[in-house]
Amino acid sequence: MPKISNKGKSMPESPIRKLVPFSEIAKNKGIKVYHLNIGQPDIKTPEVALNAIKNIDLEVLEYSHSAGFESYRRKLSAYYQKQGLPINFEDIIITTGGSEALLFAMGCTMDIDDEIIIPEPFYANYNGFSTASGVKVVPVMSGIENGFALPPISAFEKLITPKTKAILICNPSNPTGYLYSKDEIFQLAEIVKKHDLFLIADEVYREFIYDGDVHFSVMNVPGIEQNAIMIDSVSKRYSMCGARIGCIVSKNKEVMGAAMKFAQARLSPPTFAQIASEAAIDTPQSYFDDVITEYKGRRDTLITELNKIEGVMVATPKGAFYCIARLPVKNADHFAQWLLETFEYNGETVMVAPAAGFYSTPNVGLNEIRIAYVLKKENLIKSCVILKEALKVYKD
Amino acid sequence: MPKISNKGKSMPESPIRKLVPFSEIAKNKGIKVYHLNIGQPDIKTPEVALNAIKNIDLEVLEYSHSAGFESYRRKLSAYYQKQGLPINFEDIIITTGGSEALLFAMGCTMDIDDEIIIPEPFYANYNGFSTASGVKVVPVMSGIENGFALPPISAFEKLITPKTKAILICNPSNPTGYLYSKDEIFQLAEIVKKHDLFLIADEVYREFIYDGDVHFSVMNVPGIEQNAIMIDSVSKRYSMCGARIGCIVSKNKEVMGAAMKFAQARLSPPTFAQIASEAAIDTPQSYFDDVITEYKGRRDTLITELNKIEGVMVATPKGAFYCIARLPVKNADHFAQWLLETFEYNGETVMVAPAAGFYSTPNVGLNEIRIAYVLKKENLIKSCVILKEALKVYKD
Repeated sequence: MPKISNKGKSMPESPIRKLVPFSEIAKNKGIKVYHLNIGQPDIKTPEVALNAIKNIDLEVLEYSHSAGFESYRRKLSAYYQKQGLPINFEDIIITTGGSEALLFAMGCTMDIDDEIIIPEPFYANYNGFSTASGVKVVPVMSGIENGFALPPISAFEKLITPKTKAILICNPSNPTGYLYSKDEIFQLAEIVKKHDLFLIADEVYREFIYDGDVHFSVMNVPGIEQNAIMIDSVSKRYSMCGARIGCIVSKNKEVMGAAMKFAQARLSPPTFAQIASEAAIDTPQSYFDDVITEYKGRRDTLITELNKIEGVMVATPKGAFYCIARLPVKNADHFAQWLLETFEYNGETVMVAPAAGFYSTPNVGLNEIRIAYVLKKENLIKSCVILKEALKVYKD
Repeated sequence: MPKISNKGKSMPESPIRKLVPFSEIAKNKGIKVYHLNIGQPDIKTPEVALNAIKNIDLEVLEYSHSAGFESYRRKLSAYYQKQGLPINFEDIIITTGGSEALLFAMGCTMDIDDEIIIPEPFYANYNGFSTASGVKVVPVMSGIENGFALPPISAFEKLITPKTKAILICNPSNPTGYLYSKDEIFQLAEIVKKHDLFLIADEVYREFIYDGDVHFSVMNVPGIEQNAIMIDSVSKRYSMCGARIGCIVSKNKEVMGAAMKFAQARLSPPTFAQIASEAAIDTPQSYFDDVITEYKGRRDTLITELNKIEGVMVATPKGAFYCIARLPVKNADHFAQWLLETFEYNGETVMVAPAAGFYSTPNVGLNEIRIAYVLKKENLIKSCVILKEALKVYKD
């Protein structure tokens, strides 16, 4: 019998996948499960995007250009320019989700066994893309105590070897909700310039910023035009996760030339979803205002309610729609399973994502969970009551 | 300035990409260019698929299951079973085009520097997927003289090393149009069983078979259930290239478990296109009958016309919609460029794909081109007249 590859074996499992059967069991027992574990927003997709699909007028569903429809790239470039980002349409390749953009970025910048430094906790699938690309993740620890701010640059410098090719950040961050300040981005710019590294910034949550803070993109730092690679996606911006449309953006012609060859090999990004994404750019500002107001309300509700629970520590997220909470338990993995398998409160329970899967360092974050605040406020309140009651009776 | 990766540098360019600027120049001069170079059919997408999109009823464009919608996988499994293939829905993971299915197949079966044997000429992007996966392509030569039939098994055996993990075939073949016989598939089955290799079969053209021949799938060979991996796509079957929906199929649970981890890392295949692909399964048989009749007519026209040109040798394709033609020129690459740059016949010319890009062995196929017969018959006739007139005046 043929053997599968070591790569296939070492591909990481989704950190929540092992909990799914327990969630099914709970549901089969008639227990209502509040999903705090997933990043699928309940926000409506803009009508202008859905209407573009309903009114579609084509006879042959053809490939698009491998870089995506030029009309879409031009409109996207105008969108960025309106935000003050100096991005031309030639600097953009449309990808199948931010996921493919990350794979292209890794493929263009790193060879087998090269190293990429990522502040942890980080988006769990970075591990998967790295394994698929044969690249080694080198984590640099950020902590809940200071809200998951950028680790000191000295911590990065200690980790740089001849194999180091890039630093990857998610800004604002999934899973921490941290928003890097302009000063922190400039610190990163310094170090990538000094060591000739790429700075890959996953900015897919850039529109989700609360409290009047301003998002500062790596595309806006003078002097690192050849180092900066931006990853973007329509998934969260327009609540179009199922579109699978993202993009890779860079001023570095060599990077974009190489990315184009990866893009050509897979022919084109999805046509229907590009049409919807292009139309989505006309979404009125009022949509975003409403969405941000809604998320800010959810965040405030969640943080207020979590802080009412004895022994729970949480860093207030400044952006995106996730937070990391430290619980008074030894093993959040076990606690999360127990919530689904054993616990209920008035016939309801919650599903959370144990945070250990968002760390690359072993045995870190064991008492932390990631919460996605993608539920309505009343359900977030109910979820926190359930968590509180659960922690009263849970024994490690 | 940071350097891009060797992987990025060594990603192959599309074999026709360098011709595109010359095609643009020709068009700007007002010359009509017949595109014999691309696999984008002009066949209409089934209405049932497009209507499913026009009538779409959703408020949030959500992720699907990472393996694709279960409803779609179940319907697809029924489609295969009707064709006599013993494929259950659990044996299927929906992918973003056949391209992603090939990447998953390579990722699950091969580590860095492992080897995959592929009869050449082969679909040029296999080189790209191999480079992206860090895998080495080992070509085994098939020849125009016997219509690109399977090379003798002894030729495969000579190439097998401890690094060899898989044999990849395209059946029927892009670019040759060759259809492997049941006997040839059984020969391949023998050798993969003997050496514990995977047999990956790209069967995306399986419905395009002419002359009453029957397609024989690797999923239909008893005894190689653990070796066989099938790649499929809706792109050609329903003229839905822009959907970017394919699938990877195997009975090997370890392979599918590993493929699922690759699938989870990229979250899900595109939702709109899955809805269209699921609906497309209801396409009436008359659609396929018409399409096959049309392609058979095109093939017959093309081969008849090519055979009228002195010095041209062509193997009659049995399936798909490509053929390889040997021309009385030294360098088809140069000839193809000259056709666009210099030649015209009554204000018209043709664009062809030089076949060297479909070989992995250097300096092979230099006098061959690949022709896609995706144009209407009258345009194929005109194209052959242009080729004939061009060859009269062309000087190497």
